[in-house]
Amino acid sequence: MQTIPSKQEIEQAHERIRDFIHRTPILTSSSINNIFGTTLFFKCENMQRVGAFKMRGASNVVLSLKDEEISKGIATHSSGNHAAAVSLAARLRNTNAYIVMPRTAPKIKQNAVRGYGAEVILCEPTLQSREETLKKVVEEKGAYFIHPYNDARIVAGQATAAKEIFEEINDLDFIIAPVGGGGLASGTALSALYFSSTTKVIGAEPKGADDAFRSIRDNKIYPSVNPKTIADGLLTQLGELTFNIIKKHVSEIITVEEDSIIKAMRMIWERMKIIVEPSAAVTLAVILENKEKFANKKVGLILSGGNVDLDKLPW
Amino acid sequence: MQTIPSKQEIEQAHERIRDFIHRTPILTSSSINNIFGTTLFFKCENMQRVGAFKMRGASNVVLSLKDEEISKGIATHSSGNHAAAVSLAARLRNTNAYIVMPRTAPKIKQNAVRGYGAEVILCEPTLQSREETLKKVVEEKGAYFIHPYNDARIVAGQATAAKEIFEEINDLDFIIAPVGGGGLASGTALSALYFSSTTKVIGAEPKGADDAFRSIRDNKIYPSVNPKTIADGLLTQLGELTFNIIKKHVSEIITVEEDSIIKAMRMIWERMKIIVEPSAAVTLAVILENKEKFANKKVGLILSGGNVDLDKLPW
Repeated sequence: MQTIPSKQEIEQAHERIRDFIHRTPILTSSSINNIFGTTLFFKCENMQRVGAFKMRGASNVVLSLKDEEISKGIATHSSGNHAAAVSLAARLRNTNAYIVMPRTAPKIKQNAVRGYGAEVILCEPTLQSREETLKKVVEEKGAYFIHPYNDARIVAGQATAAKEIFEEINDLDFIIAPVGGGGLASGTALSALYFSSTTKVIGAEPKGADDAFRSIRDNKIYPSVNPKTIADGLLTQLGELTFNIIKKHVSEIITVEEDSIIKAMRMIWERMKIIVEPSAAVTLAVILENKEKFANKKVGLILSGGNVDLDKLPW
Repeated sequence: MQTIPSKQEIEQAHERIRDFIHRTPILTSSSINNIFGTTLFFKCENMQRVGAFKMRGASNVVLSLKDEEISKGIATHSSGNHAAAVSLAARLRNTNAYIVMPRTAPKIKQNAVRGYGAEVILCEPTLQSREETLKKVVEEKGAYFIHPYNDARIVAGQATAAKEIFEEINDLDFIIAPVGGGGLASGTALSALYFSSTTKVIGAEPKGADDAFRSIRDNKIYPSVNPKTIADGLLTQLGELTFNIIKKHVSEIITVEEDSIIKAMRMIWERMKIIVEPSAAVTLAVILENKEKFANKKVGLILSGGNVDLDKLPW
């Protein structure tokens, strides 16, 4: 089993990646604060490189590898932001990236990954095909596999987003992060533990993909079976490492309705003039459905990403 | 004729409004810089209060008036961002706002203005009806009329957006502002003159509403007759004051195609993850159509606003 990243490992990760990521802005919106009677701080990872926090973890892994470990390239399977992040991170080390994507992934996403210089290898849209295809690519190319979340170095990298919040904003009562595979949520929990121990950590999850909620409740990792949500970044199940961190250091996981996600997303677009993807809006949906819990509190929200197809908006 | 605002008047305006406006962020995008081989600095007035730079000028006027001048309220005619700005500025002084709007203005805009606490008075969608209705409102209510742009105090207020850019970014080769009635463009020109005299000022205008371009070329103010552009903030003609400032202090006005405006707008949404209205995207459209002119230059662009109907996007 992997060990949980230490405070020092998160600090080292931050040093390592600092020059290769954006220190994203933390925005506030007085009109949204007025609506909810609370004070919200939005960490804009939608403005991160590749448009998502995933760049933090991917660059932390890639920058910590030895030359000989990555001389034959790096590989992953992902149809989303992790794919783009690994592709861009590979360029930081002048090596190749091999991305296994389901053949059903939108052309626009395939092309985005190719745009970052990666080679896309298509597979069938099943977990089995993904894993088998990846295994083949790793064997044939000799590439180094970077798991999207169940990796201590990934968690340490994702933790730097919350670390930056705590460096700028004191005395947060809560910090809310979306939960998919749990890399961001567990990194956020560790940063709270190490850098702002009075801040409670909340995981935000769509009701239609509530495997993490059930996993923590029943103390066993459930697979994510036929998840139904617009939040396409939150479809995956927890890994062993992220499960253990979340179980111990996240106060609670709150699930939200699809309607709330869309309403929260539109509220962010209209009031803050920034573009976030549904998975990011899940954090504000938690506030929207639990107004009393957060009244007169100081709350940090991690807007995890901003990659949406502008031709297919949910309104 | 009104006098052109002095350096001191712009500095005083900035002091006056500082606590009532946002100091908006200046963003950069390495991917857009790479596309054009240039270095662009985007001043995000889309994130200004009411979602547009108009709050600067309106608050400068309202905050500089004596109690007895505004005790009976303030009034203007506008279907857009100036209406919202005047409404919010009235609240800063606890007075009423009366906004004359064409009855054809979208309900969503009428409601936004009412949401800021203003009384909306509908008129026919003609300039004549607007002016007559406004005159009646001013007479009946005793309200103070605030012109949307042809007013030295408005110009001084709008000038503070560019002033903030020059405070943070040195040695800009160009600064680009959209031209509608000319309040922002002339304010930008004056701030360049006073605070960054080596920076050339460019006005950006849609080809389908090129009255300012023709006015400067022929040295007479043309009315804006049947303008056809998606940039709905740039439909108005210059005023005498803004014409005189632009004639003297703007290097050139560059007109752009509708296609370029939409392409630039989408590029800003996709690459920068921020929401700008078409009128703001006109600035990047100038770069898009004149790549060589701006190659290897440092260019400031004023993203004037972010108020778009998310149900009616141009793609």
